[in-house]
Amino acid sequence: METAVSRFPVVDLADLPEDLRERIQAIVEKSGFVPNIFLALGHRPAELRAFLDYHDALMERSDGLSKAERELIVVATSGANHCTYCVVAHGAILRVRAKDPELADRVSSNPWQVELDERGRAIVDLALALSHDSAAFGDADLDLAREAGLTDDEIWDVGAITALFAMSNRLAHLTALRPNPEFFLMGRLPRER
Amino acid sequence: METAVSRFPVVDLADLPEDLRERIQAIVEKSGFVPNIFLALGHRPAELRAFLDYHDALMERSDGLSKAERELIVVATSGANHCTYCVVAHGAILRVRAKDPELADRVSSNPWQVELDERGRAIVDLALALSHDSAAFGDADLDLAREAGLTDDEIWDVGAITALFAMSNRLAHLTALRPNPEFFLMGRLPRER
Amino acid sequence: METAVSRFPVVDLADLPEDLRERIQAIVEKSGFVPNIFLALGHRPAELRAFLDYHDALMERSDGLSKAERELIVVATSGANHCTYCVVAHGAILRVRAKDPELADRVSSNPWQVELDERGRAIVDLALALSHDSAAFGDADLDLAREAGLTDDEIWDVGAITALFAMSNRLAHLTALRPNPEFFLMGRLPRER
Amino acid sequence: METAVSRFPVVDLADLPEDLRERIQAIVEKSGFVPNIFLALGHRPAELRAFLDYHDALMERSDGLSKAERELIVVATSGANHCTYCVVAHGAILRVRAKDPELADRVSSNPWQVELDERGRAIVDLALALSHDSAAFGDADLDLAREAGLTDDEIWDVGAITALFAMSNRLAHLTALRPNPEFFLMGRLPRER
Amino acid sequence: METAVSRFPVVDLADLPEDLRERIQAIVEKSGFVPNIFLALGHRPAELRAFLDYHDALMERSDGLSKAERELIVVATSGANHCTYCVVAHGAILRVRAKDPELADRVSSNPWQVELDERGRAIVDLALALSHDSAAFGDADLDLAREAGLTDDEIWDVGAITALFAMSNRLAHLTALRPNPEFFLMGRLPRER
Amino acid sequence: METAVSRFPVVDLADLPEDLRERIQAIVEKSGFVPNIFLALGHRPAELRAFLDYHDALMERSDGLSKAERELIVVATSGANHCTYCVVAHGAILRVRAKDPELADRVSSNPWQVELDERGRAIVDLALALSHDSAAFGDADLDLAREAGLTDDEIWDVGAITALFAMSNRLAHLTALRPNPEFFLMGRLPRER
Repeated sequence: METAVSRFPVVDLADLPEDLRERIQAIVEKSGFVPNIFLALGHRPAELRAFLDYHDALMERSDGLSKAERELIVVATSGANHCTYCVVAHGAILRVRAKDPELADRVSSNPWQVELDERGRAIVDLALALSHDSAAFGDADLDLAREAGLTDDEIWDVGAITALFAMSNRLAHLTALRPNPEFFLMGRLPRER
Repeated sequence: METAVSRFPVVDLADLPEDLRERIQAIVEKSGFVPNIFLALGHRPAELRAFLDYHDALMERSDGLSKAERELIVVATSGANHCTYCVVAHGAILRVRAKDPELADRVSSNPWQVELDERGRAIVDLALALSHDSAAFGDADLDLAREAGLTDDEIWDVGAITALFAMSNRLAHLTALRPNPEFFLMGRLPRER
Repeated sequence: METAVSRFPVVDLADLPEDLRERIQAIVEKSGFVPNIFLALGHRPAELRAFLDYHDALMERSDGLSKAERELIVVATSGANHCTYCVVAHGAILRVRAKDPELADRVSSNPWQVELDERGRAIVDLALALSHDSAAFGDADLDLAREAGLTDDEIWDVGAITALFAMSNRLAHLTALRPNPEFFLMGRLPRER
Repeated sequence: METAVSRFPVVDLADLPEDLRERIQAIVEKSGFVPNIFLALGHRPAELRAFLDYHDALMERSDGLSKAERELIVVATSGANHCTYCVVAHGAILRVRAKDPELADRVSSNPWQVELDERGRAIVDLALALSHDSAAFGDADLDLAREAGLTDDEIWDVGAITALFAMSNRLAHLTALRPNPEFFLMGRLPRER
Repeated sequence: METAVSRFPVVDLADLPEDLRERIQAIVEKSGFVPNIFLALGHRPAELRAFLDYHDALMERSDGLSKAERELIVVATSGANHCTYCVVAHGAILRVRAKDPELADRVSSNPWQVELDERGRAIVDLALALSHDSAAFGDADLDLAREAGLTDDEIWDVGAITALFAMSNRLAHLTALRPNPEFFLMGRLPRER
Repeated sequence: METAVSRFPVVDLADLPEDLRERIQAIVEKSGFVPNIFLALGHRPAELRAFLDYHDALMERSDGLSKAERELIVVATSGANHCTYCVVAHGAILRVRAKDPELADRVSSNPWQVELDERGRAIVDLALALSHDSAAFGDADLDLAREAGLTDDEIWDVGAITALFAMSNRLAHLTALRPNPEFFLMGRLPRER
């Protein structure tokens, strides 16, 4: 059975430009391992750098949506897009951030019907509309989000995160990116929460 | 947040006819809990009995497909059908039967592209053809399965299990069936394998 | 041209276990012929028995939906699933039960727009929602059914019959099941009604 | 229940221009009734005239495809388009022309898998490719038809008839056109063949 | 690269029956060139004549919809059907008729969300419902059109033009019809408007 | 009629951080106007910066694919995604880069069947597979690309550009981004080529 990280060559961390090596080192210190996405995209350092910048601008932003809500968008749209890497890796992060060992599996297996509170449902509905039927995306979708109390700034966040992972999911499909084994169990055991 | 087992009333085990109570009791002794599907379908004992009979005739059969291969079909088609209960519950059983903590998540998130050996791939392709594009299902699908070495008896098993879970997935969607908490972690830790 | 009943071997009634032989004999006495589904599924007697039990529990039930309404669900979802055997065989039964020589052809060719009274429309809409877009099936579908006056017990029936024929349609696709010639004309002539 | 012929006003034959009245009269003499399509389109005589001209140019043409093959295309694509009027009316004509009481029901319920000889299968596959996935229609579809022995003139016929009924099906959906009761039984009884 | 007008033989204008030659000559005098559709359909003069008759009955009609609105329907449904010839040729006519150099590109690239006034939006929504989801087309679609002020005569026009171009788009796909170079620029420059 | 550039506030160039202002100024000097995408994304400078970095890393890369081929991917996938801004803006750039006034309209209206040389067809097929059916994207798609002579480095480019515009198309749908009037005519007149 195939166990390669990517269909394409992966980078050796030591060969990355210093700024990227340092950013990834900081992630390793927090999580204990190098998420495979960095090894795969490191094949093209300029693209990896832009990816990290875009990711951080949206996922580390402190205004508006909570960190768990940001991961909820990622897991919902990646589930609908059948992206194994993003479902497994961001499912792990969602478990940790939402302090809920079940939510990620329930969201990724069926984002359309998973039970969420009104705000969560509005966030996921907006994300799925843009992710899966973007040609028909329109004012009606924004109106539903506003009725549920989302601000325009939060709506931008939902839309931009959805767009970023429309790209990210396709990069994972392109590279047949393999989730690190550590992600599968992360956030499932009480002591980890 | 909703935490009900089913949209419809659930049965109290004590109220079930004796034959059903005994069958479920035997399952509880093995797994340590009552899978929610039995509580939900128990609302209609005659239907639960037929369901159990059909399930056992296909899933407990000793000829042909291995037990792990039977669960592989269930997880693949339930993933494609976005059925949370079946993904979570049968994902747990697949982890146990295949002695692989990652396979279920990888199959359910993307059954079309998950890496499998040739026989596994042929089984899943046949199941997805019947599950998702059944109007176009035809001799070409059977020929591909035969080329991969499946016997006609195994092909029937793949098809009949796929059909059974086309029903089962819809019963879970009908009842908004909630997976038992125990399933989420089952088969993920080394000591359980 | 192929005229086989099934892609797989069919059973000789004499070779069936006695309980199954008697059940099928009773059907033959009423209809005058052995519906091919029994010959095809008889290849696996335990599965045929469970199928008959499930079928009778839902289709012969005296509470709630009328017999004609139960067949309406079968013809509508089988039409949407492009299942020739179920459209032809259950179309015949629907003609007989609804005493209407046109209804089955109109329902099976376009279940979404066939003209029905409000109750019939609500039954068919609920069935199609679960049959064809089950991942999105949710409370909104149940609410529409309740608004049209369906009880929760009737909703279960609609859902469970839909689920049973999601299985049955796929068994017919698996076996390339051929409708008996008798079904095509049954219920079309005044004297038969 | 609605029993109107059309959602829009229907014409009284006596009010039609003479050339149209004569053409329809000739049809009535052969079939014994006025097919509802003429009453519905007669609402706009110039459109009815162009429709009849186009229809006759393609369906009455003596070269190439047989009359039964032309009706096969209509029933297959109308079945796939869920057009009740065309399935019922042209299904009747197909039964008469093919001298086969089962073919129309089998083709319309599942044109993708109905058993046909190689030429019939090639005709239906070409028609479905153009009818249902016309954006992807290309040389590969024509090559398959040519391999099955269709001439370019026959290919044009298949394509043009498919195109004509893409229009016709939508006119029937627009008007909610009701099939005449006579069509349902036509060609089903031995004496009619 | 292929530069043929059609996959099939094209007619020499001189070889057409006189009535058709005169009709096309009149078009050439207005537009300055022979639109390729006439050369391609001229391969079968009787079909070309019926096509022209149908086209003129609907597109040259003076009641109800404006000429620009008629072209709007063609461009919207042809864009949704991915028909290059119709998008380019009727896009040119729409630019001229609507005196708007941007509208055609905006409508054809995304008819679902292009900004239109209420009447234009209702026309396009009705056309797309019939063009793309005709099996589900029903009274609800007509009600929306009536609420936006369309008369039943206008609704027929929208529906019939949509149906005509469901045919026309498929004829263009069948023949791989190439747009004349002149269409690409027509109506884009101020002096042409 | 709406003429706003974006559903969300747009930035005033003068308010952008200096590095971004300079980068956009350089674009303005070349094209003569500020493409609206920069005004819309400038609402969030950090995201605009990452977007520009990612864009330049892929679209300005000198190895492998030609500039025209890169734009071909953008126009093909944006056409399939019904993204008006990207079709119009990148259609203009494709006209300029390919020195072909027709190619963009033909690719965007039907990327599946537009006639291209073998290499162009392989590039577009690979892009559409990842853009539109990414869950099924796999080795078979890469094999087809390699058979047409694409190197793995070029395959990465095709995939990564497709992924970037899966994001970009959704940002345009999110903001209802309006194409600048200048794009519609650019590259259509001989003197511009």
